[in-house]
Amino acid sequence: MRDEIRRRIPEATVARLPLYLRSLIEVAEAKVPTISSERLAELAGVNAAKVRKDLSYLGSYGTRGVGYEVEYLLYEISRELGLTQDWPVVIIGIGNLGHALANYRGFTARGFRVAALLDADPSKVGEPVAGLAVRPLDELPEVVAEHQVAIGIIATPAPAAQEVADRLVAAGVKSILNFAPAVLSVPDGVSLRKVDLSIELQILTFYQQRGDEAPEPAPVG
Amino acid sequence: MRDEIRRRIPEATVARLPLYLRSLIEVAEAKVPTISSERLAELAGVNAAKVRKDLSYLGSYGTRGVGYEVEYLLYEISRELGLTQDWPVVIIGIGNLGHALANYRGFTARGFRVAALLDADPSKVGEPVAGLAVRPLDELPEVVAEHQVAIGIIATPAPAAQEVADRLVAAGVKSILNFAPAVLSVPDGVSLRKVDLSIELQILTFYQQRGDEAPEPAPVG
Repeated sequence: MRDEIRRRIPEATVARLPLYLRSLIEVAEAKVPTISSERLAELAGVNAAKVRKDLSYLGSYGTRGVGYEVEYLLYEISRELGLTQDWPVVIIGIGNLGHALANYRGFTARGFRVAALLDADPSKVGEPVAGLAVRPLDELPEVVAEHQVAIGIIATPAPAAQEVADRLVAAGVKSILNFAPAVLSVPDGVSLRKVDLSIELQILTFYQQRGDEAPEPAPVG
Repeated sequence: MRDEIRRRIPEATVARLPLYLRSLIEVAEAKVPTISSERLAELAGVNAAKVRKDLSYLGSYGTRGVGYEVEYLLYEISRELGLTQDWPVVIIGIGNLGHALANYRGFTARGFRVAALLDADPSKVGEPVAGLAVRPLDELPEVVAEHQVAIGIIATPAPAAQEVADRLVAAGVKSILNFAPAVLSVPDGVSLRKVDLSIELQILTFYQQRGDEAPEPAPVG
């Protein structure tokens, strides 16, 4: 029954859950105990009816005149996103971006533990980064088995990205996040998402060329 | 009249335009002359009715049985996003992330020209990065005036981010993209967007914990 309910969460709702989570973390840090759908909507940059609809898929309806309990909603969304469990990730390609990702506090704050860093360049192997020694890419199968790696993050230059994706798949990794500016293909059953760092810039220029202010989540008060 | 039409583009449509643009660039590289709304929907990861509705705000309706002309649609979306003009950007905070952003090919490919790199750390000043010498943060007002900087990118550690935002605002920059894991406030009339590098990871774990495959744009064929 529970599984029945969970399977129906629409893709667009899934994509908004991390935005709610981020807003709720800020609210929780400000020690605010409850939040209205209107306030959460404002913080997350969506409309209130959508917030209520999205949260109803999680079985959360709030209390009229009070809103949602912040801590409980945080837990519900974290659980729904799978963030209440440990997700060991590997980062492949320890150039500047790989370094930055290895040190990115936003990963550990959400339960993503960087288990290993790998690079194909022998001159990088052994280098200490974020408390780990960089390992050779050839050790990927052992690293994946050893740490039960769930997610591979590709931070290599574009030309190397497909080969790295192939190696991750061969090592049994089922989820890949690609930061390289390259179009990759993976077999059925493997999830691939791409981060394009220029998308938010494009949204800014849309508004700036009009002399309008881009919509932004309001600060937590 | 033109302005009248442009002002009505909904926020959610604006946020999808960069996804269409990315898909169209891939299609154009594959020398495909026309594209159906169904195919574009598949590539961008949205539904076809939404694609048609979104593009209708741009005055693009396609031709029945043929679809949209790829090159023309590319131009239309680029123009709508303001990408047919030059957008000089500055990056502040030249640590690993700043280095990675300075070298990120996705920016220049979309018309974002990195005009200057700045850092508050005197030991970084003068360092050559991506063909530029890092300048001291104190020179921000001159840099902004000199290059007519439109957008400031904050890549500092979290504790420094608000001060850098204040300095960008004081220097007259109207659009700010924040990569620091910090909640910033800016005055009315200034656009602020935040990049959270962990969001895509959260979407991956949602599907992985269910044993499902995350939705992904199909490769261009």
